[in-house]
Amino acid sequence: MARTIEIRREFVDELRVAIKENDEKKALEMITDFHAADIAELYDDISIEEARYLYLLLDGERASDVLAELDEDDRERFLKVLPGEVIAQKFIDNMDSDDAADVIGDLSEEKKQDILLHLDDLEQAGDIVDLLSYDENTAGGLMAKELIKVNENWTILTCLKELANQADEVDEVYYMYVIDNSNKLKGIVSLKKMLLSNNATTVKTIIEDDIISVKTSTPAEEVAQVMNKYDLVAIPVIDSIGRLVGRITIDDIVDFIREEAERDYQMASGLVDEIEVKDKVLHITRVRLPWLLIGLVGGILGALVLGKFESNLKVYPEMAFFIPLIAAMGGNVGIQSSAIIVQSLANNTLKGESTIKRLLKEFTVALFNGLILAALIFVYNFFVSDSFALTLTVSTALLSVIIFAALFGTFIPLILDRFRVDAALATGPFITTMNDIIGLLIYMLIGRMLYGVFA
Amino acid sequence: MARTIEIRREFVDELRVAIKENDEKKALEMITDFHAADIAELYDDISIEEARYLYLLLDGERASDVLAELDEDDRERFLKVLPGEVIAQKFIDNMDSDDAADVIGDLSEEKKQDILLHLDDLEQAGDIVDLLSYDENTAGGLMAKELIKVNENWTILTCLKELANQADEVDEVYYMYVIDNSNKLKGIVSLKKMLLSNNATTVKTIIEDDIISVKTSTPAEEVAQVMNKYDLVAIPVIDSIGRLVGRITIDDIVDFIREEAERDYQMASGLVDEIEVKDKVLHITRVRLPWLLIGLVGGILGALVLGKFESNLKVYPEMAFFIPLIAAMGGNVGIQSSAIIVQSLANNTLKGESTIKRLLKEFTVALFNGLILAALIFVYNFFVSDSFALTLTVSTALLSVIIFAALFGTFIPLILDRFRVDAALATGPFITTMNDIIGLLIYMLIGRMLYGVFA
Repeated sequence: MARTIEIRREFVDELRVAIKENDEKKALEMITDFHAADIAELYDDISIEEARYLYLLLDGERASDVLAELDEDDRERFLKVLPGEVIAQKFIDNMDSDDAADVIGDLSEEKKQDILLHLDDLEQAGDIVDLLSYDENTAGGLMAKELIKVNENWTILTCLKELANQADEVDEVYYMYVIDNSNKLKGIVSLKKMLLSNNATTVKTIIEDDIISVKTSTPAEEVAQVMNKYDLVAIPVIDSIGRLVGRITIDDIVDFIREEAERDYQMASGLVDEIEVKDKVLHITRVRLPWLLIGLVGGILGALVLGKFESNLKVYPEMAFFIPLIAAMGGNVGIQSSAIIVQSLANNTLKGESTIKRLLKEFTVALFNGLILAALIFVYNFFVSDSFALTLTVSTALLSVIIFAALFGTFIPLILDRFRVDAALATGPFITTMNDIIGLLIYMLIGRMLYGVFA
Repeated sequence: MARTIEIRREFVDELRVAIKENDEKKALEMITDFHAADIAELYDDISIEEARYLYLLLDGERASDVLAELDEDDRERFLKVLPGEVIAQKFIDNMDSDDAADVIGDLSEEKKQDILLHLDDLEQAGDIVDLLSYDENTAGGLMAKELIKVNENWTILTCLKELANQADEVDEVYYMYVIDNSNKLKGIVSLKKMLLSNNATTVKTIIEDDIISVKTSTPAEEVAQVMNKYDLVAIPVIDSIGRLVGRITIDDIVDFIREEAERDYQMASGLVDEIEVKDKVLHITRVRLPWLLIGLVGGILGALVLGKFESNLKVYPEMAFFIPLIAAMGGNVGIQSSAIIVQSLANNTLKGESTIKRLLKEFTVALFNGLILAALIFVYNFFVSDSFALTLTVSTALLSVIIFAALFGTFIPLILDRFRVDAALATGPFITTMNDIIGLLIYMLIGRMLYGVFA
């Protein structure tokens, strides 16, 4: 009781010996107290052949739980070494329909067919085929078919009996869904309310009909927002004419929220695809290269801009000293501004504020920050540099660049979003690189002008 | 049924008129179908006085639901205009203990006392005081006291009766927790299993004793990891001697996961504190300034580094052209490397890999990317620039800077984590600025050397 298992080196060694010696009894005994998630974690420490041996020892229910817990990439590799018949009967038959569809969805068309044809449970096969037809980023793609439903005209007593029948299929009973004779969703009854009511009353009288549901076509993001806003642990999914077809549980949504957050974070960090520490070097290289390439192009454009001012730089080499400062500050301010917009778009907290109002606010913030920073660097250069032209140039350019970057960083994600492009793109290479180049241009132009006046 | 309400302008206007005309009946009627979360959202569209009028019209249960749904800042402002007695009896008395503790925890010591003394429900007052004693980033700070517990020696029949008694206090019944005579947690029974069992059997015989729990002192982050790993919708919390003291439900954890992800994202984007689009200009300015100040100091240090090479820059102004490229690439690679580490630390997927192995892998990735990028810029400069020294300098420096930045970006978050400092700090100003400066130094040193040889 009360544990999360820390898998120790010696334990793994002992387990591998048991597997090697084909000691089924000992191997099974060693993991008898393990949660499926812990058994899945063992995968990292043993070979694929050892995993195959071990997981096939488990009974169907547990074997399929372990498979559902495996990391996607690991699972794909693992399933490659098994014939379709074994996958079907050992794993898929016992899975929840949504997990089964997830697992099968990742496989090749051929293997998919092979598995589906070998399923013993034909209802399961039908459910999986149904689920596979939905886009995986919609409610239909997230939902499971398993749920408990009762007819609005039944009595509580009938319901409780039905529950005993249906509950066997469903892991967690949160609510019982109430349907009418044509399978249309009418509401829910909570177990609590049923237990508090007289057995002879009909469901209709204790139904909660003011419930929230989503359609199969509802985007996953919206499902997450709705469940989060209303603190739901499960939400029913209906088809276009209101028939109850599935339910989505919170654990699927938690995964979705986490993935979304990670994706935005990675985008902001210049990674174009999901990446994990244990991924192969080549994959990591490929995922990182695109941003770096854009950075390289940006750097070349920057060099071209500066090249136009070669004669100025030759006469006033001190102008070069503050190039990194100007570029860095433009980049920083731009990312700060766009990060807030991207996050607000993701959280849906932006509604109600107009673009103009938003830009005005950004302008004010940038003006404040810009004035403070420009004043600081002015004081520094005033005492350290002997060129007043430089002192004035750096401060003026810094203020201009900060204001420009803030407006640019706000505007671009809003525009991307309006055209239904993922706004998180803005926090990646695009804004940073553009800001760098335009910042340099502003700096050198102001410098040429002010040096003309003051030097 | 089946809706999320989009609040329309005209609706709000009509509601405000009803409030202004003191038409209680109409105002209440207008929001009668609203979910508490929707009523809370109205707060953004009406004045604080109007919200006060409207929310006090609601009955206690609904009023407290709305308060719990309000955004933290909004809630604080709202509660300021209400006397402690009203807050206590209208809102806090009807809340779940964890929500109540959250609400009260944010208030001044004086107001806290005022509210606690005015609570009608003394058990609630005691629960809140208990909960306030825990650190809010631990399981104790997240848990609610409301739960359903049954004694292991009871029969199913007794349990079902008890459930009817206790269920009134608890919104969602996921499991019934089983305790022994000294209140120690022994396991759970699911409602499903109870409904499938004979009424005369004792709980002991159908108990699931292999359950996962956390201690009051368990860090919130670990609670989130455990619930996520084992797909739990609720987890029991025990004290240091194993007595059941509360439970944490998934909705609290979803909020926590989301906040954590946002915090990391904001850190990477150079924001030192939580920030929302609707925050005041002054707050936004303050949150952004620190990174910009560090950036400014970094820029000045960069200027000092370049100042040491003034004579070189005067003779070879083209060296200045590629300063932005070198600085940007160092920054980009550094952020990419540290982002992966920060995310792996947050996901707990880093275990098992040694620091040396990790650095070696980063080195390989950086070498690949560096060679590709250095080759590209070499080709570009070879055809465009007439200085072979420059061509060689830029490529050599780029490769060196990329490798350095990758190792630095990997090493720093790992070190921070080892010393129990939040690794996400590394993706902020620190790495970027350090990378900029050291990158410049590498570039100029290589330039001075190669120009000596080739020019």
